[in-house]
Amino acid sequence: MSTIITFGEVLMRLSPFGNKKFIQANTLEFYFGGTELNVGLSIAHFGGHVKHITCISNDFIGDTAISYLNKFDLDTTAIVRSNRPLGVYFLEVGAVMRPSSISYNRSHSAFSSIQPDMVNWEEALKQGSWFHWTGITPALTQGSYDTLKAGLKLAKAKGMQVSADPTYRSGLWKYGVNAKEALTELLECSTVFIGGINEMNEVLGTNYSYSNDEFIQASKLLMEKFPTINKVFDKIRTSINSSWHKIRARMWNGKEFRETQDFDITHIVDRIGTGDAFAAGLIYGLQHYDDYKSMEFASAACALKHTYQGDVNYATIAEVTGILEGNVSGRFNR
Amino acid sequence: MSTIITFGEVLMRLSPFGNKKFIQANTLEFYFGGTELNVGLSIAHFGGHVKHITCISNDFIGDTAISYLNKFDLDTTAIVRSNRPLGVYFLEVGAVMRPSSISYNRSHSAFSSIQPDMVNWEEALKQGSWFHWTGITPALTQGSYDTLKAGLKLAKAKGMQVSADPTYRSGLWKYGVNAKEALTELLECSTVFIGGINEMNEVLGTNYSYSNDEFIQASKLLMEKFPTINKVFDKIRTSINSSWHKIRARMWNGKEFRETQDFDITHIVDRIGTGDAFAAGLIYGLQHYDDYKSMEFASAACALKHTYQGDVNYATIAEVTGILEGNVSGRFNR
Amino acid sequence: MSTIITFGEVLMRLSPFGNKKFIQANTLEFYFGGTELNVGLSIAHFGGHVKHITCISNDFIGDTAISYLNKFDLDTTAIVRSNRPLGVYFLEVGAVMRPSSISYNRSHSAFSSIQPDMVNWEEALKQGSWFHWTGITPALTQGSYDTLKAGLKLAKAKGMQVSADPTYRSGLWKYGVNAKEALTELLECSTVFIGGINEMNEVLGTNYSYSNDEFIQASKLLMEKFPTINKVFDKIRTSINSSWHKIRARMWNGKEFRETQDFDITHIVDRIGTGDAFAAGLIYGLQHYDDYKSMEFASAACALKHTYQGDVNYATIAEVTGILEGNVSGRFNR
Amino acid sequence: MSTIITFGEVLMRLSPFGNKKFIQANTLEFYFGGTELNVGLSIAHFGGHVKHITCISNDFIGDTAISYLNKFDLDTTAIVRSNRPLGVYFLEVGAVMRPSSISYNRSHSAFSSIQPDMVNWEEALKQGSWFHWTGITPALTQGSYDTLKAGLKLAKAKGMQVSADPTYRSGLWKYGVNAKEALTELLECSTVFIGGINEMNEVLGTNYSYSNDEFIQASKLLMEKFPTINKVFDKIRTSINSSWHKIRARMWNGKEFRETQDFDITHIVDRIGTGDAFAAGLIYGLQHYDDYKSMEFASAACALKHTYQGDVNYATIAEVTGILEGNVSGRFNR
Amino acid sequence: MSTIITFGEVLMRLSPFGNKKFIQANTLEFYFGGTELNVGLSIAHFGGHVKHITCISNDFIGDTAISYLNKFDLDTTAIVRSNRPLGVYFLEVGAVMRPSSISYNRSHSAFSSIQPDMVNWEEALKQGSWFHWTGITPALTQGSYDTLKAGLKLAKAKGMQVSADPTYRSGLWKYGVNAKEALTELLECSTVFIGGINEMNEVLGTNYSYSNDEFIQASKLLMEKFPTINKVFDKIRTSINSSWHKIRARMWNGKEFRETQDFDITHIVDRIGTGDAFAAGLIYGLQHYDDYKSMEFASAACALKHTYQGDVNYATIAEVTGILEGNVSGRFNR
Amino acid sequence: MSTIITFGEVLMRLSPFGNKKFIQANTLEFYFGGTELNVGLSIAHFGGHVKHITCISNDFIGDTAISYLNKFDLDTTAIVRSNRPLGVYFLEVGAVMRPSSISYNRSHSAFSSIQPDMVNWEEALKQGSWFHWTGITPALTQGSYDTLKAGLKLAKAKGMQVSADPTYRSGLWKYGVNAKEALTELLECSTVFIGGINEMNEVLGTNYSYSNDEFIQASKLLMEKFPTINKVFDKIRTSINSSWHKIRARMWNGKEFRETQDFDITHIVDRIGTGDAFAAGLIYGLQHYDDYKSMEFASAACALKHTYQGDVNYATIAEVTGILEGNVSGRFNR
Repeated sequence: MSTIITFGEVLMRLSPFGNKKFIQANTLEFYFGGTELNVGLSIAHFGGHVKHITCISNDFIGDTAISYLNKFDLDTTAIVRSNRPLGVYFLEVGAVMRPSSISYNRSHSAFSSIQPDMVNWEEALKQGSWFHWTGITPALTQGSYDTLKAGLKLAKAKGMQVSADPTYRSGLWKYGVNAKEALTELLECSTVFIGGINEMNEVLGTNYSYSNDEFIQASKLLMEKFPTINKVFDKIRTSINSSWHKIRARMWNGKEFRETQDFDITHIVDRIGTGDAFAAGLIYGLQHYDDYKSMEFASAACALKHTYQGDVNYATIAEVTGILEGNVSGRFNR
Repeated sequence: MSTIITFGEVLMRLSPFGNKKFIQANTLEFYFGGTELNVGLSIAHFGGHVKHITCISNDFIGDTAISYLNKFDLDTTAIVRSNRPLGVYFLEVGAVMRPSSISYNRSHSAFSSIQPDMVNWEEALKQGSWFHWTGITPALTQGSYDTLKAGLKLAKAKGMQVSADPTYRSGLWKYGVNAKEALTELLECSTVFIGGINEMNEVLGTNYSYSNDEFIQASKLLMEKFPTINKVFDKIRTSINSSWHKIRARMWNGKEFRETQDFDITHIVDRIGTGDAFAAGLIYGLQHYDDYKSMEFASAACALKHTYQGDVNYATIAEVTGILEGNVSGRFNR
Repeated sequence: MSTIITFGEVLMRLSPFGNKKFIQANTLEFYFGGTELNVGLSIAHFGGHVKHITCISNDFIGDTAISYLNKFDLDTTAIVRSNRPLGVYFLEVGAVMRPSSISYNRSHSAFSSIQPDMVNWEEALKQGSWFHWTGITPALTQGSYDTLKAGLKLAKAKGMQVSADPTYRSGLWKYGVNAKEALTELLECSTVFIGGINEMNEVLGTNYSYSNDEFIQASKLLMEKFPTINKVFDKIRTSINSSWHKIRARMWNGKEFRETQDFDITHIVDRIGTGDAFAAGLIYGLQHYDDYKSMEFASAACALKHTYQGDVNYATIAEVTGILEGNVSGRFNR
Repeated sequence: MSTIITFGEVLMRLSPFGNKKFIQANTLEFYFGGTELNVGLSIAHFGGHVKHITCISNDFIGDTAISYLNKFDLDTTAIVRSNRPLGVYFLEVGAVMRPSSISYNRSHSAFSSIQPDMVNWEEALKQGSWFHWTGITPALTQGSYDTLKAGLKLAKAKGMQVSADPTYRSGLWKYGVNAKEALTELLECSTVFIGGINEMNEVLGTNYSYSNDEFIQASKLLMEKFPTINKVFDKIRTSINSSWHKIRARMWNGKEFRETQDFDITHIVDRIGTGDAFAAGLIYGLQHYDDYKSMEFASAACALKHTYQGDVNYATIAEVTGILEGNVSGRFNR
Repeated sequence: MSTIITFGEVLMRLSPFGNKKFIQANTLEFYFGGTELNVGLSIAHFGGHVKHITCISNDFIGDTAISYLNKFDLDTTAIVRSNRPLGVYFLEVGAVMRPSSISYNRSHSAFSSIQPDMVNWEEALKQGSWFHWTGITPALTQGSYDTLKAGLKLAKAKGMQVSADPTYRSGLWKYGVNAKEALTELLECSTVFIGGINEMNEVLGTNYSYSNDEFIQASKLLMEKFPTINKVFDKIRTSINSSWHKIRARMWNGKEFRETQDFDITHIVDRIGTGDAFAAGLIYGLQHYDDYKSMEFASAACALKHTYQGDVNYATIAEVTGILEGNVSGRFNR
Repeated sequence: MSTIITFGEVLMRLSPFGNKKFIQANTLEFYFGGTELNVGLSIAHFGGHVKHITCISNDFIGDTAISYLNKFDLDTTAIVRSNRPLGVYFLEVGAVMRPSSISYNRSHSAFSSIQPDMVNWEEALKQGSWFHWTGITPALTQGSYDTLKAGLKLAKAKGMQVSADPTYRSGLWKYGVNAKEALTELLECSTVFIGGINEMNEVLGTNYSYSNDEFIQASKLLMEKFPTINKVFDKIRTSINSSWHKIRARMWNGKEFRETQDFDITHIVDRIGTGDAFAAGLIYGLQHYDDYKSMEFASAACALKHTYQGDVNYATIAEVTGILEGNVSGRFNR
């Protein structure tokens, strides 16, 4: 059984019900999430074998997180425990023109204490065929960056597929490393790039526009600079407001440019983790379909994720392929 | 006081809150429903006198079901009890492109044990002026089919109005009877046909398209084959996605074809039972208005049902007629 | 610190969750509201110093109301207590074509017992710079009308700004006073008119249409009749249905006519208090911005209020100005 | 079918979940109750035919109340509607040494407007065999007192059994009638007295102590003064604290004194309506058992009521008799 | 890693919140349970490796059940799926003298279709060191009895420890097999007997009383008749009422009689599954401690289970041993 | 108006409903608390003027905390904001023999960043008459210790009353200061000692037993060592289990020893903050009553706190004095 490896922080998500603000509430819902974990759980829910590597608190909150991950039959055996608390994020869900708001409590979390010697990468990657990473992990601490780098170097050495989602979030990267340099080093271990113009401009130091033409040019330049990368996938979101988005995707795989049609998501239930659902769909897809079909699968998975509460995509393979076969009018499954 | 008779299974509906899946939930909402019951309860809520005939479990769940029916002032005096459990259905409510999913636990329910000798039809129909049936009941078991047939034959003999909603659901009809033959026999007792091209094609063995012209042709052929039927009403649903539908209706009453305008249901709360709300509106309407006004009333009732959680239409006469008078912009009732 | 004064009834609002009717429910949410209070709380939430004057019950419900007001750091020191119960309103929230319904229990409430000698206006207005009133208060009882009149006369004498929102609700005004005469007397103390054609026609005895031209004419006539009034602000709502509205505003300040663009509120969370949010935005705005920017601020505040449950606008200054700077696509605030 | 008549106010009960105070809460549970209604609903739940006579609001809250009563298959056909609101009471449930607190909003309720000419007693009592009244109703308004008096006089004339629960609550009786005189007049129509030393002292003007001997003396004197009364039943509550009570009962029926053993109610769920459950058990019992067995049945019903949330006793005949047969250790019913 | 095998039905448990009856409720909590599953999950929660064998529905309810089991890191790989629905039980939780009530919907469940050829016992028991069974499974259907028998015979052949909890429930055993004969055959494969006088009398055809002396005699006779059985453990429950129990245990292991002290469970949260928690504690204990310490561990586990909602014992090893070390006064764990 | 000063961390408390563990839950309740804050809020709820000094996060969680404090009319004007997150604690509420469990996330909280120069003590203590501190604050960080010390020195210089609750929690005090030395320095500024044998032994380096005699000896020695201290109050808790405690208090004020009777708290709702309720009752009492009456008031307040959910004592003066007047049987307050 070949294993997909994800590595990154597990956060507890706390939010009032519906569209309430904390100031109006006295009850909350909680979930566990984190961009790499979301990818892992979504693939596990599709039936893939996924091992998530992270460091969580050594208390009943950490136990609860592990139990939550087990629900999805995720492999939690390589998880490390720490005496620091689990990271938390507080979420207020917006509506219409009101944006959602997030406040983090993660800077001294269990994961922030991770160091390369805490993870036995040899053991962890033993059955590994694919490694997925994002730009959040190297942006947190020197330790999380170093630990990721060690894992990716081994993955490269073992000839694994490596997907990179180098999301650049300017509020992070505070510990003293240069984002561009760090991402460059990590991209040198990667084979699939999941990201758009912003991310390419960030690592290339370019200034391409959003047009398809410039997307192709940027992708070519990226592949020149990072010869191991042979595919670029970009998910494009058009926001009418907080409650109504449109999604489509495009790709350049060195040979052809393709793009999908729009999904019109008229009544968003939860948009957190929709990018991760795209990545998960892509990783799952690339192991079963050709590039274009994989991108279509990923787009449909991403669109469906908007209808599930929580960070994880609860869509099944049957539900995603149902969308691709045109069942988008919401007839009952009996 | 003339009584409307409905006959069919009462199911307990269990679903997580909002758009959650069971796998995400640990709490549920429950309702009682069933296609014929929904019609009965909606008419009772309009103020009609309705007697529902069914067989339910002889435990506290059955007691709860009866209490639920009493809330609507439905006549529950003819209900039979059984040692088998009440049927249950589990519902996951979809959103946008995600369809709703239903799983049934009804094949050995209290109602599935019903036999003609368990219902005293003479007594039950004593004040009866109208009998409503659907294609679900004959599709369940030989006993439910036979019991319904016995009731309909008596209703016909007594000259009652009989409305048929011969919904054809292919997942049912598993006990060995031919659906077309069974429905034919039941339609021979009926006077009002509530259904569209699919249902007419099913019982006529034809292949008409959805066009208004072919609808008229099909209706004429239906009335030829079933001379007691003198009205055909069809509700047409256009689904943009699970959360956004449009509804309109059309009719052929042997003399004229009419159709209503679209209702644009931009934010669906619960679409279960909306077809039953249409039937209920029609049955109520035909006792107070002409055919076209009845169809308009039924359409408005159907549209309003999409705004109520649960299987039943909680709209009042005043709310339905308010819609018909053009109050669709949602001003407050104070 | 200059203080904004609001005066009016505090009501307890009781409503089932989501779109349920009472007949379906056994649990409720409660809030406190009231048109003038909503204005006061929204301004307090913006950081303004607001003193609300009212009479509430002398029981644990009244204590709860005061605690609720304190949450917003509203000045509750001038509130009077009574042995009568707090007024209550019951709300069923509509959806799509179903209107919301309200039932009041306020005719013998604590506030309905208010008399001029129960409020020490001299003391209450000591730091006062602005007084806001609405047409609901004089419509309730002779005592509430007289008490308001006494306050407004003192406010005028002290040269305070006085904003009038003379909403005319025909179901009120039952105690024997002529609405037009009463409103006239109160408008003579006012400096800012917040209302549209209907309200101007009511007090002027005219019959202007909704066109911008006639709005300007009506405003001019109003200012002629009430020379203290120097600004008229009108919020225009277009309702597609209960769940989807559009909002824009227009003004005449004696010199220029301006109007804002539409806000398209595609998924309303709660429309109660949205007019009050407009008034609050205006009052806050006029103390910081020019007339047009104030109206824009008020419109954005009003639009945002549709996304908060409860009567109060929980938007912050940053959120409102974010909207005005074009952040309407719902990107996350992290 | 002989009918039991109950007459009295229907109140909406609003309380936070568990032991919360309103000041801590933003959600509530609601029930409908009222001392005479509770008696009626409990008997209806035992399977008796009960007609409740009252006046309720003509809005969706009144509709909800009627639907609630219908759930129990109570006869609601004689209920009158009014434009005044339904009475409300707010409840904070205590625990251990903390008492429960109640605040009423009933002084101008729908029921407070009742007048003798609003009830057609002839029609209402047509099938009536038993009439139950309490001391709350005459204590509210002149109209409620007069209406009750009219009903009781007719009941006496028809030779019906009349049970009196002349609870004396000093916070009521504010409209100008002398409590003792009023109760005296009503007791002259009664046949069964449900009450203890306090109530007998109140109407007799005596000062008996709680001892069994003085209970017998008081009962004898009561029967002397009110010759139609032939049975006195007294429920004795010993409160360890708000969460833990003991219950027993005693009786004098002109011939013998009997008392029951204690029920030890170690974990009270809801004590509201437990006295009403005793009265209901007694009324039901006296139609099926001898005096002592009726009192035992009533005591067990009362004890069981402490385990149900809401004002009504949800115990079934089987559950009550199960207690009397010694099944008090809480073994499962499967 | 040695594996503990449990085999039995998985049921969905549905119950209203707190002590509500279904007739009062419209929301439910759900759990999954079943006597053998509860044992398995409790051991898994202690950290043991447990494989549960069962047959569940092939729908989203079955998926949810598997996800629930995975939460506890239970091995679900040997679970079989069926097109029949998952069994359900409805629970109303009693209080004080009110017993809890249960209604089952299991007679045509997925598990009721199990047949010996559906389970690959060779594969399932490969790592197995212990097999736990109860008297519920053979009481359901011929197929469940035969399947269990096949598994136990193999377990005996492999020399596994086999614990028997031959609970006799008279409402079951309806499919035509003699309970005593069936249990006898199964006990012949067993090594540890978990049960009391009632169960021993049932299988021995004796009539021993509850005294310790007769318990020893019965145990000796049992071991004579079933020579593979070398230990008998009995949990004794004294019920003050539904909310307050006392628990102690006794044992005869062929050499010595021992009994534990009482645990006084003054405020029961949920007593379902407390017997299963005892069995789980025993099975876990017997792999780590001597017989007496195992029984003490089991008693403490059983007592603790009364404080957790749901069927499963959420106590950890540390919590159980904490109790045994005397920490029963509820000091905080920080 | 004289002001009571409290200084200490504000924590967000997160716990599942009822007795659930996090591993069973997906919803939470939240409160704000902290030992010194609890004292402050309880006194504010009694009507005292209290100013709380702390440092909280500069995000919407911090805003929510301030709003929560405002509810109680606490003076929040001296609160400092920080970019670090608010401290959090997770609570699982035990029952019977199961202890409650707490996990903290506070080591890098907003409060942990506090430094003496962040608080303007001169300004903060301007109206101050009483300063309350506990042993938690100096145990957190050097900064919190230094800041407290600065405040206490000024309080002493101003001749304020200073109450010390030097709770010693061994899991804290990790930053390098010697607990005994630190507490000694702080006690030198104090006038009232709230604590028992453990706390006195800790600061005196003695080994007194729990007897009344040794309590008096210890108190005398304490007063010798700390001449400013003139009263010692000790609350004694006897725990039957997590759900059932007994509470009494004793005092030595240099002249007389007194003790109160036991309060038997048979059904605990929430024991968090009950010690703080005792301190609050004492501080409030000592400003209105003599020493013994103050201690009685404090004991009753402490007992009542066990009946309120959350960290704060919601008892009113009337409720506390009601208990002292013997109203402990839980009769209704109407």
